[in-house]
Amino acid sequence: MKSHRQELWFNTPSRRNYINITNQVEDIIKKSGIQEGLCLVNAMHITASVYINDDESGLIQDYDDFLEKLAPHEPISQYRHNNTGEDNGDAHIKRQLMGREVVVAISNGSLDFGPWEQIFYAEFDGRRKKRVLVKVVGE
Amino acid sequence: MKSHRQELWFNTPSRRNYINITNQVEDIIKKSGIQEGLCLVNAMHITASVYINDDESGLIQDYDDFLEKLAPHEPISQYRHNNTGEDNGDAHIKRQLMGREVVVAISNGSLDFGPWEQIFYAEFDGRRKKRVLVKVVGE
Amino acid sequence: MKSHRQELWFNTPSRRNYINITNQVEDIIKKSGIQEGLCLVNAMHITASVYINDDESGLIQDYDDFLEKLAPHEPISQYRHNNTGEDNGDAHIKRQLMGREVVVAISNGSLDFGPWEQIFYAEFDGRRKKRVLVKVVGE
Repeated sequence: MKSHRQELWFNTPSRRNYINITNQVEDIIKKSGIQEGLCLVNAMHITASVYINDDESGLIQDYDDFLEKLAPHEPISQYRHNNTGEDNGDAHIKRQLMGREVVVAISNGSLDFGPWEQIFYAEFDGRRKKRVLVKVVGE
Repeated sequence: MKSHRQELWFNTPSRRNYINITNQVEDIIKKSGIQEGLCLVNAMHITASVYINDDESGLIQDYDDFLEKLAPHEPISQYRHNNTGEDNGDAHIKRQLMGREVVVAISNGSLDFGPWEQIFYAEFDGRRKKRVLVKVVGE
Repeated sequence: MKSHRQELWFNTPSRRNYINITNQVEDIIKKSGIQEGLCLVNAMHITASVYINDDESGLIQDYDDFLEKLAPHEPISQYRHNNTGEDNGDAHIKRQLMGREVVVAISNGSLDFGPWEQIFYAEFDGRRKKRVLVKVVGE
């Protein structure tokens, strides 16, 4: 069994952002030389998500509206977590709804994807450096 | 390390459907000959989910009611994604809530499951051919 | 490829509980002797979750409030599943929102984690013995 590990770094200009990282993950798989296996892609921070869906700007806005409706950023006093002095209680909830990680199949040395699958990094508390881990295992 | 890949195809008669695929996944694991490892089961389309829970008809109706309350199909104009001419904005949200994939352990050549765990394919925008990927890795 | 399998048992005193199991998972990884690979941690029961987020008491209360707002325990008659004689329809929904499992990378024989990542067992229908499965694969 072979394995390969690499990090992606992000520093988004605004609090919430949605970034298509499919090509970066595909490049890491190529670099790993692994032909058959699994690839884990996870946010290393707890106010961000990695998820798979369509790269369509209207849909991304729909996700953002939906998350903001269910767990609005303000008033920040509505979250007990913000009593610690932070203001990102909403981001911890948004992240849980969208998920921490995806596990994707590698077949013939590439992402084994359906026609519209794209991997996204979703940031819910940006404006600072944060990381995604890509771990590839297989042969 | 061995690996095995197989697709399951679905063409559900209605927009939303919940199908127990546990036996099909178990058959694929047997066919792979893998005794110890991991099995990834993921929707290859972005308006469908694979999840694990109970096979109980009341519960499935509860899930459907819950998802339809949080992200109703109509009015379709409430989703920006539908400005593209599609009508499945709700399905993209429902799929995120229920998840894209499950990763299950294989022990002694079988699904390593608790007493009530069952794998479901959940369709939120059916009436056409769509696929699930089963990827088995191990030894 | 090596693999290792171990169960964690819980019997929580109240219906809902959130337990940090990071150290127990780390101990199992050490015991497995696996240096590079993947570790699956999943609830074996369908009214409980395994998730990764911060170990901060205010945040845990925020999660609990959020889940109880979206899928309240009472009135139990609001869930068709409870027509079976059970009273845990809400717990099946809460578990779907928080997720069944996490897959974590193992690098250099340890959990490959960001600074605040902690693994939690979330119980939504406790007061009886229930299990979590830890399956480690790698080399």
